Amino acid sequence: MIKTVLVGLVCGAVALTLGVLIGHFGITNNSSSAPSWINDIGKDVDENIVEKFLSEVDRLNIEENLRELTKVPHLATSEGDEQTVQFMLKRWQDPESGLDKAWREEYEVYLSFPDAKNPNKVTVGESFLEKEKNYTKDQEDPDIVQPYAAYSPAGQPKGKLVYANQGKPSDYELLNRTVDLRGTIAITRYGGAGRGAKAINAAPYGVIGVLVYTDPLDINDGLMSDINETYPHSWYLPPSGVERGAFGSQYGDMLTPYLAAKEETYRIPFKNVTGVPPIPIQPIGFEDAYRLICELGGEGAPTEWKGAFNCTYNFGGPGFKPESAFNNSDVKMAIFNQDVIKNSSNVMGVIRGSVEPDRYVIYGNHRDSWVHGAIDPSSGTSVMLELSRVLGKMVKEGKWRPRRSIIFGSWGAEEFGLIGSAEYTEQYFTMLSERTIAYINVDIAVFANATLRASAMPSLQNILFTATRQVSAPGLDSTSVYDNWVQFSNRTSPTHGLGKKIKKSQTSHLFPQSKTNARIYPAYHTAYDTFHYASNFIDPGFFSHQAVARTAGNVLIRLADSLVLPLNCSDYAESLEDYLNKAVDLYQEKLSSRNISMGRSLLEFKSTFSSFGFLCFSPEPLKVRRINDQLMLLDRAFLNPLAFPDKYAYRHVIWASSSANVGTFPGLADAFAKADSSGQTGDWEKVHHHMSMLSQAIDGAAGMLENVI
Amino acid sequence: MIKTVLVGLVCGAVALTLGVLIGHFGITNNSSSAPSWINDIGKDVDENIVEKFLSEVDRLNIEENLRELTKVPHLATSEGDEQTVQFMLKRWQDPESGLDKAWREEYEVYLSFPDAKNPNKVTVGESFLEKEKNYTKDQEDPDIVQPYAAYSPAGQPKGKLVYANQGKPSDYELLNRTVDLRGTIAITRYGGAGRGAKAINAAPYGVIGVLVYTDPLDINDGLMSDINETYPHSWYLPPSGVERGAFGSQYGDMLTPYLAAKEETYRIPFKNVTGVPPIPIQPIGFEDAYRLICELGGEGAPTEWKGAFNCTYNFGGPGFKPESAFNNSDVKMAIFNQDVIKNSSNVMGVIRGSVEPDRYVIYGNHRDSWVHGAIDPSSGTSVMLELSRVLGKMVKEGKWRPRRSIIFGSWGAEEFGLIGSAEYTEQYFTMLSERTIAYINVDIAVFANATLRASAMPSLQNILFTATRQVSAPGLDSTSVYDNWVQFSNRTSPTHGLGKKIKKSQTSHLFPQSKTNARIYPAYHTAYDTFHYASNFIDPGFFSHQAVARTAGNVLIRLADSLVLPLNCSDYAESLEDYLNKAVDLYQEKLSSRNISMGRSLLEFKSTFSSFGFLCFSPEPLKVRRINDQLMLLDRAFLNPLAFPDKYAYRHVIWASSSANVGTFPGLADAFAKADSSGQTGDWEKVHHHMSMLSQAIDGAAGMLENVI
Repeated sequence: MIKTVLVGLVCGAVALTLGVLIGHFGITNNSSSAPSWINDIGKDVDENIVEKFLSEVDRLNIEENLRELTKVPHLATSEGDEQTVQFMLKRWQDPESGLDKAWREEYEVYLSFPDAKNPNKVTVGESFLEKEKNYTKDQEDPDIVQPYAAYSPAGQPKGKLVYANQGKPSDYELLNRTVDLRGTIAITRYGGAGRGAKAINAAPYGVIGVLVYTDPLDINDGLMSDINETYPHSWYLPPSGVERGAFGSQYGDMLTPYLAAKEETYRIPFKNVTGVPPIPIQPIGFEDAYRLICELGGEGAPTEWKGAFNCTYNFGGPGFKPESAFNNSDVKMAIFNQDVIKNSSNVMGVIRGSVEPDRYVIYGNHRDSWVHGAIDPSSGTSVMLELSRVLGKMVKEGKWRPRRSIIFGSWGAEEFGLIGSAEYTEQYFTMLSERTIAYINVDIAVFANATLRASAMPSLQNILFTATRQVSAPGLDSTSVYDNWVQFSNRTSPTHGLGKKIKKSQTSHLFPQSKTNARIYPAYHTAYDTFHYASNFIDPGFFSHQAVARTAGNVLIRLADSLVLPLNCSDYAESLEDYLNKAVDLYQEKLSSRNISMGRSLLEFKSTFSSFGFLCFSPEPLKVRRINDQLMLLDRAFLNPLAFPDKYAYRHVIWASSSANVGTFPGLADAFAKADSSGQTGDWEKVHHHMSMLSQAIDGAAGMLENVI
Repeated sequence: MIKTVLVGLVCGAVALTLGVLIGHFGITNNSSSAPSWINDIGKDVDENIVEKFLSEVDRLNIEENLRELTKVPHLATSEGDEQTVQFMLKRWQDPESGLDKAWREEYEVYLSFPDAKNPNKVTVGESFLEKEKNYTKDQEDPDIVQPYAAYSPAGQPKGKLVYANQGKPSDYELLNRTVDLRGTIAITRYGGAGRGAKAINAAPYGVIGVLVYTDPLDINDGLMSDINETYPHSWYLPPSGVERGAFGSQYGDMLTPYLAAKEETYRIPFKNVTGVPPIPIQPIGFEDAYRLICELGGEGAPTEWKGAFNCTYNFGGPGFKPESAFNNSDVKMAIFNQDVIKNSSNVMGVIRGSVEPDRYVIYGNHRDSWVHGAIDPSSGTSVMLELSRVLGKMVKEGKWRPRRSIIFGSWGAEEFGLIGSAEYTEQYFTMLSERTIAYINVDIAVFANATLRASAMPSLQNILFTATRQVSAPGLDSTSVYDNWVQFSNRTSPTHGLGKKIKKSQTSHLFPQSKTNARIYPAYHTAYDTFHYASNFIDPGFFSHQAVARTAGNVLIRLADSLVLPLNCSDYAESLEDYLNKAVDLYQEKLSSRNISMGRSLLEFKSTFSSFGFLCFSPEPLKVRRINDQLMLLDRAFLNPLAFPDKYAYRHVIWASSSANVGTFPGLADAFAKADSSGQTGDWEKVHHHMSMLSQAIDGAAGMLENVI
């Protein structure tokens, strides 16, 4: 999974207010007979601590962390995974630079592995699916899991081959107009649809097996040769490289929805699990895909279906050209994946807050990888370890303790569907709901030596601006990340002006950018994602890693130490307004004709949100806490466990995922799309129903910002 | 609806700790250069204020409040209801004894009324269902709503009469063995099953209409004559008296589940509403019931079906005895009820908290009645007004301001299914969830001059003991309510010893008790529930009202002013342990045989709960707040919106209602009962599933009490 800097949750007050508070407490502190705790209770972020943190973060330590973490493959629950558990514990329990406390949390989770004794095979007369080719010793490690599709069922389908582009519903529909798909094996390329969706979309047409490969067009800027073009000559994927992955679409352990997967926990029958492939599916390298696709018969596929191979992409007769050596052959898949419940660990660590230990800022990344996982996820883990070392050292030396508690999480089994973090939130749901300020996730820290991706609630824009202003861009000592950003951005915001607006899931190109169209770094989820690869092709010198560690750590310190939480409600309002404007444009006319009103609350929230930052308040600690609670809990008002009855685990009426993919309220967009297409009264009623839930949620959020009584 | 003193939510720390804190702040306060807010921030309950409150509560004011509130009938949304709205607003906005602020909140709610121009009728040749007989001018008021079953459908069924006891499923089943029920009208007596259930249970047997009456056995200790035995000669129900009521089983506005019923809110189609009578149903007086039942033919009903009539209770032939004057007649029902969406108001008022305005103690009662509603609900409203007058006056005079905010609610349309309060909680859900300490409900304040009913979370036992120790029992100046209680109680608790244990929905007889078996006061929901009735038969002199006002107000002040919340976790643990022991007794063997474990958390919570009260902490305000948040939010850990998929609005895994009616975890009990009866694997899986949810919730609750990090 790819997330770089994901900062979660809620909304903020203006910096001016902070100034007032600092001043007041400055005076109060001089009074010698005030109780001693009054010093701590009024303390704000200490810029000297921030400076000290920034200067102590050392790229060479990050490099050493990465070397250590990537010594052996560390697939979830493997021996190598256990070694990383021990390593994390050792570091977080270090007497000189560890945390206050570190421990492991274990879950019994449902995973899927190939059978080591009975490898998966694809054959067309001869056998395909060789191991990935060795270029360094890393690829020789016997513990490397051979390429497979986790959660693909076992099975041995045999049939004529067809080419189905990216395996989207529209791809199969188009293909099916020309070719009878019943009993065929479809070869697809990565992209366009989720991994498992390529098989889920295929099954209704009678397809019995699916292959998936990475086309050099999508990942290698078209390059294919390992003589001089691909790794180890460059960062590009070698011809035998295969992207592994989880082919389920659920979050968390599939058998224990909403429950932590402990030994005695109830598990749903596997037949009730949705979102997994109904037919065998297997990923292969483009070397193999080239030989298969270029031999296919039948009509030529549309231009958009074409990748970088120097041959025509045909649909398949079904099957191969008459003149092909494969001729009339079937493709045979022999898939021996096994589902198994195994013990997976999160490693947790905390620094206890001095003043508000019951407020948590959480920082996490997963620990498990598909193979050596140097970039995914160990680049992020190396950054986390350096950041926690610097903070831990300051704590152990008595130089600093955060106002709020900091919780670090090193999640297990993420590659199988965010399992470790999901089980953790399920287990500690109430505590986390009531006490968490924000969650910061840094997974792949760097992947192209060119890009910072920051995705967060809009209220966190400001803190990212503050942090990036204080960090030098890698290799540009006199230019801050922020200045660089303004230079490279062409987005505008009514509040922040040019180049200062971060939206959910928006990519910002902060650093001089490599010329590549790769959708992600080419070695992603392969046996080439190694320390050698990372240190030679992704971030030689680890300057980018260092910049990410400084930025993320700066954000973390500010969230943990600010007297008033640095969250900005106006920015939240601005995003809501974008959504509203879009909804008015797209829906209002049709809704009015059906007597569905856009809802008063949708039109009135803005003033409440915008004015919150300008509230006046005194320095009394319970008043500050009250404001902070309003900020922290504002976002909870948008949660409604009944809002998305068809979408597992989604509750947030603003930021839930949407199938409609329009930049507006997700549930409204999906309900509208469905009603508009079906025209059924019942579907229009669902639009109205969701509109009311949305309206009530926005009212509730605005209410959280109003005077508390 | 009947609730006397219902105190809601959460769990508490021991009094010893309070002492320590008070002492410390006493010292700190003498320091002249400490900031001024430090005085308020460390203040605890001021016993002088409590004393002042108790002494100022005046029974004669309560009497005057009641006289004013019961001048005219005030059925929800009627002209009389609007008069009470204005009266509440006037009182709560009074410049000398009002609250900081008072206002109305309006909703558009789904109600059901008879057609004034076309009265409901029951005929057997001649017409029955006379108006209730006039004994005072009150019964002459043209605005009295004539007896009806709210939410009964309109219709004019005609059929032979049968007697179906209380209309329970088992009653119809037994009756159906002897009599073919298809096309019959069933007469039933109140009690044993919910109002609407008497029709819901009947319909599957082909019954086409239902009558319901109050048997003198159940309400009048058997007395029947208005010559000398019943009102106006005593508190007993006159022969023509009819209990009205809501015959739906939903909470809140039926058409807007989980949403506040605003004008633009989505409304579900009425056909999707569940829990309403599928066939017409109508309540009648026992005078009419007597004439019908004593004429019935067929076999004699079982002894348990017999009420106080001096005739045999027969099943019905179906229909009447051959020798009856009614002979072969059909009973005809002509029901003209109309469903309508009308505007209903809550009246809200607040006293803003001085130190923690963002923590709410809520005190409420409904305002609407069926007729004059002197006891239900105006006795409670009169108490609330006297209590708010005394508190308001202290605030206006600058003598007192609570630490936390107090919110008063005068709910509308409660008689139709708790509508006003449900819409309020739906509208302000997030705010109330995050900030509410407790909810106190005093509806019927007094109903037999004999009984205090207190129903609350177990953690609130202690505060009730403290309050009742400080209030004199009515008419017993030298005996406290508490001492009286110990005398009359024979319950024991491991923690509190003899007579000191209050359980959910448990009735405690505190005062010398009238000898009556009435299930409620006899004039309940009739035109005889008047000021005359209340002041002559229920509480002459209003001494009991005064004792209730003092007790409830004392609890309110303590919840609002205590530095550390007076909630007791050990008491909570004790109740959980009772549930656990029962579950072990009843279920463990069968569960083990199916490999369902009782869950580690169920066996381990006790030490965490019990030790919480003994936590040491310093006087720092944010530490006190932290403890209080743990106490306040503990109970939230038991809420799971997915725990009761078949029960609307229930979320609490400990205190939800249970059909199984066993004193243990409600969802577990219901799931077990179903699985044990069906034997189906799927049902046993649901038991296991609920056990896991329960286990996770208890773990979560214990987690809230552990060190916050």
